[in-house]
Amino acid sequence: MIVTKFDSVFIAKKTLHSIAKRCVPELKRLANATYQDVRASVCLPLDRGILHVVEAAIDLKKKLHPELIVVVGIGGSNLGTMAVQEALLGRWWNLHHVPKVLYADTVDPDALQVIVEGMQRVLRQGRQVLLNVVSKSGETTETVANFEVLYNVLRHHRKDAERYVVATTDKDSALWHLALQKDFSLLEIPKLVGGRYSVFSAVGLFPLGLLGVDLRQLLAGAAWMREQCLSSNTKINPAALAAAAVYDSMQKGMNVYDLFFFSEELESLGKWCRQLIAESLGKEFDLRGKRVNVGITPTVCVGSTDLHSMGQLDLSGPRDKLTHFVVAHFDHQLKVPLYPEFDRLVPNLQKKELGKIMRAIADGVKAAYRKSKRPFLETRLATKDAYCVGAFMQLMMVQTILAGSLLRVNPFDQPGVEKYKRETRRFLAGRKA
Amino acid sequence: MIVTKFDSVFIAKKTLHSIAKRCVPELKRLANATYQDVRASVCLPLDRGILHVVEAAIDLKKKLHPELIVVVGIGGSNLGTMAVQEALLGRWWNLHHVPKVLYADTVDPDALQVIVEGMQRVLRQGRQVLLNVVSKSGETTETVANFEVLYNVLRHHRKDAERYVVATTDKDSALWHLALQKDFSLLEIPKLVGGRYSVFSAVGLFPLGLLGVDLRQLLAGAAWMREQCLSSNTKINPAALAAAAVYDSMQKGMNVYDLFFFSEELESLGKWCRQLIAESLGKEFDLRGKRVNVGITPTVCVGSTDLHSMGQLDLSGPRDKLTHFVVAHFDHQLKVPLYPEFDRLVPNLQKKELGKIMRAIADGVKAAYRKSKRPFLETRLATKDAYCVGAFMQLMMVQTILAGSLLRVNPFDQPGVEKYKRETRRFLAGRKA
Repeated sequence: MIVTKFDSVFIAKKTLHSIAKRCVPELKRLANATYQDVRASVCLPLDRGILHVVEAAIDLKKKLHPELIVVVGIGGSNLGTMAVQEALLGRWWNLHHVPKVLYADTVDPDALQVIVEGMQRVLRQGRQVLLNVVSKSGETTETVANFEVLYNVLRHHRKDAERYVVATTDKDSALWHLALQKDFSLLEIPKLVGGRYSVFSAVGLFPLGLLGVDLRQLLAGAAWMREQCLSSNTKINPAALAAAAVYDSMQKGMNVYDLFFFSEELESLGKWCRQLIAESLGKEFDLRGKRVNVGITPTVCVGSTDLHSMGQLDLSGPRDKLTHFVVAHFDHQLKVPLYPEFDRLVPNLQKKELGKIMRAIADGVKAAYRKSKRPFLETRLATKDAYCVGAFMQLMMVQTILAGSLLRVNPFDQPGVEKYKRETRRFLAGRKA
Repeated sequence: MIVTKFDSVFIAKKTLHSIAKRCVPELKRLANATYQDVRASVCLPLDRGILHVVEAAIDLKKKLHPELIVVVGIGGSNLGTMAVQEALLGRWWNLHHVPKVLYADTVDPDALQVIVEGMQRVLRQGRQVLLNVVSKSGETTETVANFEVLYNVLRHHRKDAERYVVATTDKDSALWHLALQKDFSLLEIPKLVGGRYSVFSAVGLFPLGLLGVDLRQLLAGAAWMREQCLSSNTKINPAALAAAAVYDSMQKGMNVYDLFFFSEELESLGKWCRQLIAESLGKEFDLRGKRVNVGITPTVCVGSTDLHSMGQLDLSGPRDKLTHFVVAHFDHQLKVPLYPEFDRLVPNLQKKELGKIMRAIADGVKAAYRKSKRPFLETRLATKDAYCVGAFMQLMMVQTILAGSLLRVNPFDQPGVEKYKRETRRFLAGRKA
């Protein structure tokens, strides 16, 4: 279904296996994790309880026939949803499908104005808009500000606005209590599931299910991969091997982890990975409190587009990158027609399938990387469906947790963001820094 | 109009000025550049001839009332157009405006299928689609393959398909001659203007003008910035100072250049910068043929979105980044309404303008960077209009050329991409590597 290969990471097999083996204690902790553990997110793919609650909420809100869903959330609260939506429904979903979906994340008034107008257009025609406000803490500045603006638009058009609001948040957060007071629908995020690990909780499942994504397939793929990734047989555990490759590359001084997708519609999946890796491994202190300033910068490329942008640097610049190619089977078959007069422009294209041309490019790139001794791992998705996307996300989450354990850092916290948030609160209160 | 500040790059003023001064010989070459020079792109902002030709082509094609424009091109052939379109018209332009615009770049059949269906929908209703195929060499694999597929769709619906095709390419390229044979409209790219420096040629101007972008303002902004950036007074020349900051950071071992935009609609502008910097500075050999494997990895962040993704790493991880914040004035004013009950969630938001909240976040981030001694430069765009966007692009182009001269590499070529293209041709021809 989805396979990861390590034969071009330019690390001796023995070394790779011996590093991967060091993941065993963490693998045991993961296998025994409950919702009372920071590793809680590994419980989600198997959790039927959450699925049933979310499915009931979806059924209820589907009856309102929303024509537009606005997801109000930022970072871990919307990146997973965007990733799965784009991978499975495409980035141009809104052009010709209903319900449309828009995301309000940062406080950019120009971007939010587009959403406000989109809502007004639907509401004025007497049709429905559903707001899903998502904030784990319930206190995210951007989310609260945006939600207030959009809730106001909804209230302006509908007296029973609260029926069209679903709040997804931690139990007992400030938003939770506001939702109770206002009679919004409520969905709970398990307390110890962090934002960047929350896609398989109500955070991702509710909006994705409402858009028609097959949640059971998504979770089945994740559960299938969970089993492989929690295996103590680290010689074949893809998450442990990938974590070992990342760790060894970092020890050798590489500080860029390039996620390179040969599919346009997986770019948002890359952005979800980016947060996961950046926040989980970028740390000032290790577990013992020693200052380490460790981390690897994740970058996202889309093939073949970014070969025309980053390829020159990747193949000729500093040897500072570990690349992770992700190749997915395409849903559509499109063939180049037979126009012999075009053969002068590029030979060997006539009557070829586009997917095969893409494969030739991907194979060409991998051959060039190998010849230049630029290290890469490669994950293949047999199909670009909910099952494989769910599996890939689960792989990346466990891989990142294991890399954290090898680096001896806490992959579940993000204390560094407090630095700018503290300063921001000062500016918001009108005090100078 | 647009100002760049260097007071937080953590480089002594004297050092910065002395490095910037070393740009003077290259500045003189740039000031004297003609179309017979690899520096040809600096001629574009002042070139009325090209503008007139493009305006005439736009007038002609507007008479066909295209409802959809498809730009077929990749890398330097479409990144500049996408950047300006998103910055000035917004990323959701297609939802409610005409002509819509779609970009066919890589050979992803799933992505191209959306474009095929979009074209068919318009054509079946008897309305018009215009294809702008853009390839400097006229031999770009992806572009030729995609164009053949889309041209075939057009021909299926219109006998006079050639009237709806505009080819933008080098004079005498294979595409040029095919266009003459087929009677497509033709627009020329000056031979020595490379793809990543071509946005102010017909490559960018034609599709942007057709979409309604004010080309004269775009070029006026670029011309205004050109004057500042070619000044030999390097103490106040923003391009020379920025190049010096990039160069000095690289000498100190920083290998990531983070372009951080506090505006959602500037993300594509970041992707344009990414190609410009990666291809221009990522080199295997220097000008003397010595192997150097030099380069800096450009990354693109959007504030405040990516503070919730990359912020933890940026403020706590390795000190391997030079950050370039770009702050733009917003077009719209949106205020948080007065809902006192929300004050419990986040204080000090009630009745605040969203733009002011964004500014508080940006100020908070900069304060945190300063306290953590993380170096950054900052460019402010007074308004997010054609003039300022044109100026910013010109700044980035000259800055990159100057950084190349400091690094003693050729910022105009990209020999490394031949490595994977050679391998790809082998796979396309059915031979194994």
